[in-house]
Amino acid sequence: MPETPRGPLTGRLAPKAVVGRVSLYVRQLEAFQRQGVATVSSHRLGLPLGINDAQVRKDLAFFGQFGCPGIGYNVPQLIESLRGVLGIDHDWPSALIGLGHLGQALVRYRGFSARGFQIVALFDSDPSKVGRDFDGLTVLPMDALAAAVVDRGIALALLAVPAESAQEVAARAVASGVTGLLNFAPTPLSVPAHVSVVSVDLSVQLEHLAYKVQFTRRGGVAAFG
Amino acid sequence: MPETPRGPLTGRLAPKAVVGRVSLYVRQLEAFQRQGVATVSSHRLGLPLGINDAQVRKDLAFFGQFGCPGIGYNVPQLIESLRGVLGIDHDWPSALIGLGHLGQALVRYRGFSARGFQIVALFDSDPSKVGRDFDGLTVLPMDALAAAVVDRGIALALLAVPAESAQEVAARAVASGVTGLLNFAPTPLSVPAHVSVVSVDLSVQLEHLAYKVQFTRRGGVAAFG
Repeated sequence: MPETPRGPLTGRLAPKAVVGRVSLYVRQLEAFQRQGVATVSSHRLGLPLGINDAQVRKDLAFFGQFGCPGIGYNVPQLIESLRGVLGIDHDWPSALIGLGHLGQALVRYRGFSARGFQIVALFDSDPSKVGRDFDGLTVLPMDALAAAVVDRGIALALLAVPAESAQEVAARAVASGVTGLLNFAPTPLSVPAHVSVVSVDLSVQLEHLAYKVQFTRRGGVAAFG
Repeated sequence: MPETPRGPLTGRLAPKAVVGRVSLYVRQLEAFQRQGVATVSSHRLGLPLGINDAQVRKDLAFFGQFGCPGIGYNVPQLIESLRGVLGIDHDWPSALIGLGHLGQALVRYRGFSARGFQIVALFDSDPSKVGRDFDGLTVLPMDALAAAVVDRGIALALLAVPAESAQEVAARAVASGVTGLLNFAPTPLSVPAHVSVVSVDLSVQLEHLAYKVQFTRRGGVAAFG
């Protein structure tokens, strides 16, 4: 018996780790599709990602019933279903706030538009940045955000601002109608319940790497006492 | 009875989520220290981070026994202990590989050196990039990496290269003696057991945000059937 689908039934928000793996499944399935592969097993799907077949089946079962026992998953169908699950079956016009070094790199980062996240408007609270052009877009003042949200259908904003101003800028973005924030500042944001935040703290990622490297150096068994 | 410390006893690698929260605890404790706060409870430590006191105690218990019931945690002592746990009680001279747009932003990103991750050498396999200066550092060819690892005590490398070349560049970095890779390419890396990888896929983070925003729009209960 396939596991009862839980996500669609109970409406539970899937854990971050599950959603992250589903993103990887979609990328791998797209690679299979480019190679002309029509059907894959959970084993074959998970193998290049280093994820075992039981985990693949459990992750997918969170969102519904896909594939057939003994046959596998239809590649284009599963791509379409999972893109719907993730909400990436349509584009997400996005705003970028903060044109410091990181913001300037994010404007040019090809990985976003390739996945349907097109940066369509740039904002900065620094008057010396307003009016400058980056990759064909002109930096607008924060006051222009609310109109852009309506006119360009913006729901998401990438926040590439210093930690000190992140909360204030987030509040202005939320007041302008943004409902999703990708936060690059190393500080937690307080937002209303209808707004979602995903935080990307690059130094936290590096600290996690340092922890793992140190752990391995110690042979996996830290000294006690 | 305080929970038996497990991390140091069993030598288990702490889950990513726990390590990530410990990074946040250290930042919050440093903020308390700047404010002259000498002692904090788990409640007070977790509150500004949106983490409840039971979770704070459980996370810390993974690594040892800290603080006293009814008194709390000594702020400078806990900072020192947790920096030791994370391996950030010393600096980590790091290499940056790939000087595209993202790499150029990472060179200038102040958040790394502030946390002891100083980028001390730049590398690119593109001859047109070699010899160029970014933020006072000259881009070196990949052939120079092995010597730099020894001379400058480099253990970590930030990989800001396209997905197509990430595996090849990772293999060269590992062959040069790097034991920790922060991977920005949207592709999994295959490395030997003694090498650690932390992957930062920015489009996966955006897809997670899209999922959360869509979930909230649907009122938290997805339609079934």
